Amino acid sequence: MNDVLYFDQAATSWPKPPSVMEAMLQCMQEYAANPGRGSHQMAVKSSRILFEARKNLAKLFGVRNPNDISFALNTTHALNQAIKGFVKPGDHVICTNVEHNSVRRPLEDLKAKGYIELTYLLHDAEGNVRIEDVRDALRPNTSLVVVNHSSNLLGSIMPVGDIGELCKRHGARLLVDAAQSAGVLPIHVGDMNIDMLAFPGHKGLLGPQGTGGLYIHPDLELEPLLHGGTGSQSESIAQPTVRPDRYEAGTQNTPGIAGLNEGVKFVLGETVERIHKREWELTQLLMAGLLEIEGITILGPKLGQNKTGIVSFNIENADSSEVAFILDQSFGIAVRSGYHCTPLAHETAGTLATGAVRASVGYFTKEAEIKTLLEAVKEIQTQYV
Amino acid sequence: MNDVLYFDQAATSWPKPPSVMEAMLQCMQEYAANPGRGSHQMAVKSSRILFEARKNLAKLFGVRNPNDISFALNTTHALNQAIKGFVKPGDHVICTNVEHNSVRRPLEDLKAKGYIELTYLLHDAEGNVRIEDVRDALRPNTSLVVVNHSSNLLGSIMPVGDIGELCKRHGARLLVDAAQSAGVLPIHVGDMNIDMLAFPGHKGLLGPQGTGGLYIHPDLELEPLLHGGTGSQSESIAQPTVRPDRYEAGTQNTPGIAGLNEGVKFVLGETVERIHKREWELTQLLMAGLLEIEGITILGPKLGQNKTGIVSFNIENADSSEVAFILDQSFGIAVRSGYHCTPLAHETAGTLATGAVRASVGYFTKEAEIKTLLEAVKEIQTQYV
Repeated sequence: MNDVLYFDQAATSWPKPPSVMEAMLQCMQEYAANPGRGSHQMAVKSSRILFEARKNLAKLFGVRNPNDISFALNTTHALNQAIKGFVKPGDHVICTNVEHNSVRRPLEDLKAKGYIELTYLLHDAEGNVRIEDVRDALRPNTSLVVVNHSSNLLGSIMPVGDIGELCKRHGARLLVDAAQSAGVLPIHVGDMNIDMLAFPGHKGLLGPQGTGGLYIHPDLELEPLLHGGTGSQSESIAQPTVRPDRYEAGTQNTPGIAGLNEGVKFVLGETVERIHKREWELTQLLMAGLLEIEGITILGPKLGQNKTGIVSFNIENADSSEVAFILDQSFGIAVRSGYHCTPLAHETAGTLATGAVRASVGYFTKEAEIKTLLEAVKEIQTQYV
Repeated sequence: MNDVLYFDQAATSWPKPPSVMEAMLQCMQEYAANPGRGSHQMAVKSSRILFEARKNLAKLFGVRNPNDISFALNTTHALNQAIKGFVKPGDHVICTNVEHNSVRRPLEDLKAKGYIELTYLLHDAEGNVRIEDVRDALRPNTSLVVVNHSSNLLGSIMPVGDIGELCKRHGARLLVDAAQSAGVLPIHVGDMNIDMLAFPGHKGLLGPQGTGGLYIHPDLELEPLLHGGTGSQSESIAQPTVRPDRYEAGTQNTPGIAGLNEGVKFVLGETVERIHKREWELTQLLMAGLLEIEGITILGPKLGQNKTGIVSFNIENADSSEVAFILDQSFGIAVRSGYHCTPLAHETAGTLATGAVRASVGYFTKEAEIKTLLEAVKEIQTQYV
């Protein structure tokens, strides 16, 4: 452990439950053979831990068949697999302007190559996208709608279920970027009509970095992003169609996934509802405190509105990176400043010049830590009056 | 630890040096923030460990600028980035028929789509590809030659330096799949004229699964396989051109890379030369013992010839998977059977019907363990006479 006050939970959660480290260590020491690549007992144990993690993820997301979930290096990998593996030339794609660069950049690349047409939906000051705007943007050739379940800048929550219903009626598919919601907001791919769900392992699911995954609806078959060995159908020159092998070429991150499995088990035990409630209460405490300080602007949902554990703000006359620097150097407080990989969201929020300070809380954040952060911000603010 | 006799080192090395686990644990417990995504001290420490690993890898492979190495989920990811990011429609590509499916499947996919022409080079019974055959296969539109540095089925070693020189003269680029050679055979990308080098972190480099990487010559610019956030140039809709960011979208496997860094340091300390010598001696011991047993055929290089730590063999009248099963169940010995993701190599070796038993040794394998394996094989062989 260290003595940093960590308010960068939206980048990666920290600390992790001790069971996460224990499972990783046990895997490395006792059985980290190559899953699916041999029939000996160590390889079998490795395969089993991957399947157990898949089963627990399926339980968490309301997925019927765990093999519809494939593992990935990170959410970006999962999103690239989903987007590039799905779209066909001539397709129209809709996304919001609070999408992360991991959605925007692949889409812009496909657009630049002339493969797709692309529409961005504006959000209001609180970071909400209106369902009518989604409806109005649909075209006959709209094949895919991509939404950020919760904005990584604003913490606002998208009406995923409503959008899913709309997509289903229209015949478009819905890809949800759950980077800020997996393990923190209730997700049920069936009830919410989610066709593809990309999620990180190292944020709300409390696993280690280097993990993440993609749920793919059983009636969809994507073009694989990675072609290679799967340990199955070795004699075929084509990528196997069997899941999850089709989307999991090469050796998977067994120790990381063993850790992720423990993170997911922790979340299932505490329940997403309790975790969300706790994080929401912490944001309210932080926001209420910030609002008492002069010259502070908070981005996104107002006090009392629903949101995830993200509180982005600016101090009048202060550059966000300067504020973050002082918090780190003088107070040992870790926040993030800058653009958070969402330039369009900043354009809408009017913060493209300054960026924003993002303080994000987690399930393990303490009230006393929020108090310390508030005192530090107050002290810094007096320097900018 | 467990009491398995582990002869599946070519799938993943095991055990790892204790420093690998210690570094992973320290990372998870003390500083696993998001590298490159914040300026606070934990994020800076994460960035630093990634750079240290890059520096050590650069030292090992003779790479001048560590930023020319980007991290990947596994070798397959690195190979897909190299191949799909490099070839242009109309290109001709040459590879050998001992390539792993991680090379063959992406190339066959590009061929099936009509993007490239593809030539496979035959190898002789010892698994060697003749430099004249490479020369004869070159065409005016040959842009890329892909070779397995060492065959994962035969352990044979390709004349990479000679092929590199040939490619350079012809104006083709050389991509080397170092899955079985990184950390085990001397590699110098400059001296060997290697333009791209794909390597695993969890085999000869003794790091954890979920790590690997790609060296890209500084004068090459590849199309990124993954588009997304890099923590740099957030406001740009295009993937940054700066390295390694261009090829490292999304959060990297920080704890895994911290472990890999220790694995590479271990290799640098012991030296690749000493490790190769040790592994070669162990293969000779194993091969000499196997040759004394009736009805055993060894694939690939003959006793006394240079090779990596792989010994593939068959017992007359026995199916390879049956042999592997008995070794596991009755003797607690882990080997691999089947096709090892290299169907073409089996075609050439005449083992497409039976597959082969692959026993692979590592730096930590003991002579006594080889003796135990030999006794077990002897006992099994008597059942098939």
